[in-house]
Amino acid sequence: MKQISLAHGGGGEEMNELLSQMFKIFDNEILKASNDAAILGDLALSTDSFVLNPIFLDDEINIGKLCVCGSVNDILMVGAEPQFLSLALILEEGFELLKLEKILNSIKKECDKCGVLLVCGDTKVVPKGNGDEIYINTTALGKIISKKETQNIKEGLSILVSGDIGRHGASVLIKRNDLEANIQSDCKNLKDEVLGLLKQDIKVVAMRDATRGGLSAVLNEWAKQSGNDLLIFEENIKIKDEVLGLCELFGYEPYELANEGTFVLCVEKSDELKALEFLRQFNPNASIIGKVLGEKKSRVILENSFGAKRFLETPKGELLPRIC
Amino acid sequence: MKQISLAHGGGGEEMNELLSQMFKIFDNEILKASNDAAILGDLALSTDSFVLNPIFLDDEINIGKLCVCGSVNDILMVGAEPQFLSLALILEEGFELLKLEKILNSIKKECDKCGVLLVCGDTKVVPKGNGDEIYINTTALGKIISKKETQNIKEGLSILVSGDIGRHGASVLIKRNDLEANIQSDCKNLKDEVLGLLKQDIKVVAMRDATRGGLSAVLNEWAKQSGNDLLIFEENIKIKDEVLGLCELFGYEPYELANEGTFVLCVEKSDELKALEFLRQFNPNASIIGKVLGEKKSRVILENSFGAKRFLETPKGELLPRIC
Repeated sequence: MKQISLAHGGGGEEMNELLSQMFKIFDNEILKASNDAAILGDLALSTDSFVLNPIFLDDEINIGKLCVCGSVNDILMVGAEPQFLSLALILEEGFELLKLEKILNSIKKECDKCGVLLVCGDTKVVPKGNGDEIYINTTALGKIISKKETQNIKEGLSILVSGDIGRHGASVLIKRNDLEANIQSDCKNLKDEVLGLLKQDIKVVAMRDATRGGLSAVLNEWAKQSGNDLLIFEENIKIKDEVLGLCELFGYEPYELANEGTFVLCVEKSDELKALEFLRQFNPNASIIGKVLGEKKSRVILENSFGAKRFLETPKGELLPRIC
Repeated sequence: MKQISLAHGGGGEEMNELLSQMFKIFDNEILKASNDAAILGDLALSTDSFVLNPIFLDDEINIGKLCVCGSVNDILMVGAEPQFLSLALILEEGFELLKLEKILNSIKKECDKCGVLLVCGDTKVVPKGNGDEIYINTTALGKIISKKETQNIKEGLSILVSGDIGRHGASVLIKRNDLEANIQSDCKNLKDEVLGLLKQDIKVVAMRDATRGGLSAVLNEWAKQSGNDLLIFEENIKIKDEVLGLCELFGYEPYELANEGTFVLCVEKSDELKALEFLRQFNPNASIIGKVLGEKKSRVILENSFGAKRFLETPKGELLPRIC
């Protein structure tokens, strides 16, 4: 491993290896906690750069909406309310101003929806051929309401997912290959779902949005961090037929496809139905997909409807590059 | 103006136009204040993406050190103490891991020097030809100690600069053109200078580090924001002979060359000597360069040693691309 490969950005095993090898020098408790956002006392901070290609997925969803949702969702995942956003653009020489305007309008619209204020920015331009239209970094700052940390995951908890999976990755695949298919990205901010959930009397222990590496990456991270095995009931995971068809066509694993408005959560077993009922108001495909086992082997075990079991491994290889 | 040009990233007039045209939709009081960092109650937040080319200027100074200093200095400029940093990388496929490691080590070293903790990160990879080795975004969060805002600039204040100018831009020019010259970038974090200054009994009104667009950009922004004319004594501005020589050779204006560890400050007239004495402990080239006039015409007036005057305009055109 002497050079960066596309796999290093895929959100799978190669990226994990790179990060643990390269970033160990920054070792501190906050980084080590590996939450979606850093928890700094009563503040939450999260950063993401977006290199989505193509930059417009459809009339509604583009890199602008994506960057706001991505950053806002990361703040929400630690039980915080997003408040402020920074915006840094890397523009390629020759990029059309009309496109920039459209993207900025999407950013503004989504900020307003989330009640987030854009408070600082930066603009850089690189010569043609040193970029690809537009790359965006957003960094979000929020206020902790009810701290959620993945390190609290333990035996007996129920695992839910807030909707059907794989639509964001699938929609990028469709757009990139100029296909016709009725799949829209799930890209959305999760403010209503998450803040609503925190206001209920439901013991949410941990949340994570299933972006790069998809559901598979989240479950494997949780298994590794907690040390526990996770048992997942395959038939409870909802996937649209169109997404499944596309996966078959291109040889992708739907559990590994990125989502941008779908999150996984761990709740106390006694609250699983209450949580499910609440989440189904937003998405009828929300479901209870499994539980945390006592066995300390850090494995994700998929069980199908016939009771047969297999391991779900951490995604590997190039996956789908530039999906966010 | 239908497409992005390199001039839009230069820190000069074209960038100002683009920002005021495109970013007016985000209009809010915090953004409008146009400080180096957003002031959020007792917090300061600042974001910057770095596209420096070449990524290594010399053994000590590279894009890693630069990004920490740049973000930390922006926080300092509003009178805040930098505390936390986020780091987002956009890596080009094929980028050498040894280089990445060197850059991350520089980042760590500089964070330690500043007492800043790196608390969250992100890594994206783009295919070969869609980037240029490495682009870095750092966003810094700090705690306000003694709020400094450019909107408080008014008649009678003295203007100082913390050292000789133009060295960062000049060092990039040298490296890019493979020249031999004894110029090292001024890239450094200004923590000791600024926090030290705030502890003295010196009435500092505003500070700004003279990065893209150089001293000229800062003075013109201040003139525009305050509405006042600024009178600048040309002979008091220190510029190394090597920097002047290089400017003549390439046709650059030294006042427009970027600095990365040099800042401009406005202090009460009665405190100018005290401020100067303090700053000279760090750099013997610190000097009092001018004052804020009563005339409300938003001009920067340069006066030479013979008393002849000319206007210093906001930088225009491509300047030097990718210097930060």
